[in-house]
Amino acid sequence: MNQICKLFNIKYPIIQAGMVWCSGWKLASAVSNAGGLGVIGAGSMYPDVLRKHIQKCKNATTEPFAVNVPLLYPNVEEIMEIIVAEDVKIVFTSAGNPATWTGFLKERGITVVHVIANTKFALKAEGCGADAVVAEGFEAGGHNGREETTTLCLIPMIRAAIKIPVIAAGGIASGRAMLAALALGADAVQIGSAFAVAKESSAHLNFKERIVNASEGDTKLRMKKLVPVRLLKNEFADAVAQAEAEGANTVQLVELLGRARAKLGMFEGDMEQGELEIGQVSAMLDEIKPAAQILTEIWEEFLGEKERLVKMEI
Amino acid sequence: MNQICKLFNIKYPIIQAGMVWCSGWKLASAVSNAGGLGVIGAGSMYPDVLRKHIQKCKNATTEPFAVNVPLLYPNVEEIMEIIVAEDVKIVFTSAGNPATWTGFLKERGITVVHVIANTKFALKAEGCGADAVVAEGFEAGGHNGREETTTLCLIPMIRAAIKIPVIAAGGIASGRAMLAALALGADAVQIGSAFAVAKESSAHLNFKERIVNASEGDTKLRMKKLVPVRLLKNEFADAVAQAEAEGANTVQLVELLGRARAKLGMFEGDMEQGELEIGQVSAMLDEIKPAAQILTEIWEEFLGEKERLVKMEI
Repeated sequence: MNQICKLFNIKYPIIQAGMVWCSGWKLASAVSNAGGLGVIGAGSMYPDVLRKHIQKCKNATTEPFAVNVPLLYPNVEEIMEIIVAEDVKIVFTSAGNPATWTGFLKERGITVVHVIANTKFALKAEGCGADAVVAEGFEAGGHNGREETTTLCLIPMIRAAIKIPVIAAGGIASGRAMLAALALGADAVQIGSAFAVAKESSAHLNFKERIVNASEGDTKLRMKKLVPVRLLKNEFADAVAQAEAEGANTVQLVELLGRARAKLGMFEGDMEQGELEIGQVSAMLDEIKPAAQILTEIWEEFLGEKERLVKMEI
Repeated sequence: MNQICKLFNIKYPIIQAGMVWCSGWKLASAVSNAGGLGVIGAGSMYPDVLRKHIQKCKNATTEPFAVNVPLLYPNVEEIMEIIVAEDVKIVFTSAGNPATWTGFLKERGITVVHVIANTKFALKAEGCGADAVVAEGFEAGGHNGREETTTLCLIPMIRAAIKIPVIAAGGIASGRAMLAALALGADAVQIGSAFAVAKESSAHLNFKERIVNASEGDTKLRMKKLVPVRLLKNEFADAVAQAEAEGANTVQLVELLGRARAKLGMFEGDMEQGELEIGQVSAMLDEIKPAAQILTEIWEEFLGEKERLVKMEI
């Protein structure tokens, strides 16, 4: 049996990425009910909001689901206490040191997955007892590793470096890409952008429509002097690009970023002044549809492409 | 039968990338003799030097080989006349408009492949009669597309856009990555970095040793205000990074680049002041070995991994 299906007790080795402003209880429960692993993204939630999302998710599905916690955000202690109190069974930690919370969560019987973008942190996650890693490549949306290693280059390196299961992320929105990820040695895939445009995603409709109209080269990794983040082109991203081309320093970039830009764009729908975090695969997405349909289409394409590869004459 | 093996009349769908300062007649003939397609890189050769390499290659192998011509370099007309006069059967064109030379070459019975990094140029290459395209992703060494689309994201888009065969490039140095490329819809792979460190590569030994010691994050895409190029970290690349961070303009970057930096590094062995063009997969390369062995190992890993994928329980 697939290691990740066994670890999470799910039907398909497809994880929906925890995403700020997109993945609340509606999306997570829809993915879990469809046989994947739904993940609530705590990164854009105050602790009380997260608690309500967890409770609603438990009411909406009897299947396993998870919570993603970016470790560099404020309120992490309060969030972890809510996770334990609400009896969440699986936690994904990201954007921080896996050593800080893995022990705490494991002692309470929680399955822990840490998101990494290089071998050093994969080894660190394994070393401190994480059950699996998400290995995320350069093409992924949102915050991103400094090495800029693409998924194609990253997965074989991580697979060779650690023994725990590897979930590939970045650039995966189709059965074909899922097959490639498993060919590279991953046990499962984590899919963000494709679920950001799901009907059940809490992202603003303007953002979803912008994503399905995105073209090649419309996303770029910006803010490399702060924390690198992949953004869709708009007035704000162009202003950042201009400032960076002119040598803006970290103080100037922080000022340009201001506050709550991601909420403004992704949740409130300001397509020009908001920060629009999405992956390169946005160029291939062309429809807003239910999460279950997205998952089923990816799975069926995966099976079909696997069959094609098996029969391929070389 | 595999479309690319049929097109080139070769045994394995493995193309050795034409690379400046690495791929002369020794490397090209070694790859062709091993059953792949060897490619002489004309980009770093004066016309007379190219003529000698073609003649020596014909003496060293009876198998098909090709010449890669970067269309933006000087002397292209003279180079094309030599290619015709020396009866070269396959030409790869890159770094320019496929419309300029494809007709000329096709009329003379030459098979033409154009290197692209986006859908627009894939369609253009197909439209002007190219026999195949190389679709090259962000992780590739040397000059690179402005869209920064990774191989994982690029190949399915190109496969969906055109009907002629697609050769995947960028991030491929193992059988596992080759399997992923074919899963994504490519017909064959083009491999650069892994052959740059072949025994028969004309690169300086210092450069080969630097590559096999490279780590994750050691290459970065630089000179984005000129033509983006992936470079290995050294004093020169650090100076470029510093200048770019401070907002250097194109004039300043051209001045910093100076002349013949690639030759200085890759051919003459100056590891600090030279321009060292190599892909992200350099982090996974760890041995200088004969081209035939590199090809065989990739092929055998490909077959083994294909078998693993076929048997995989999901």
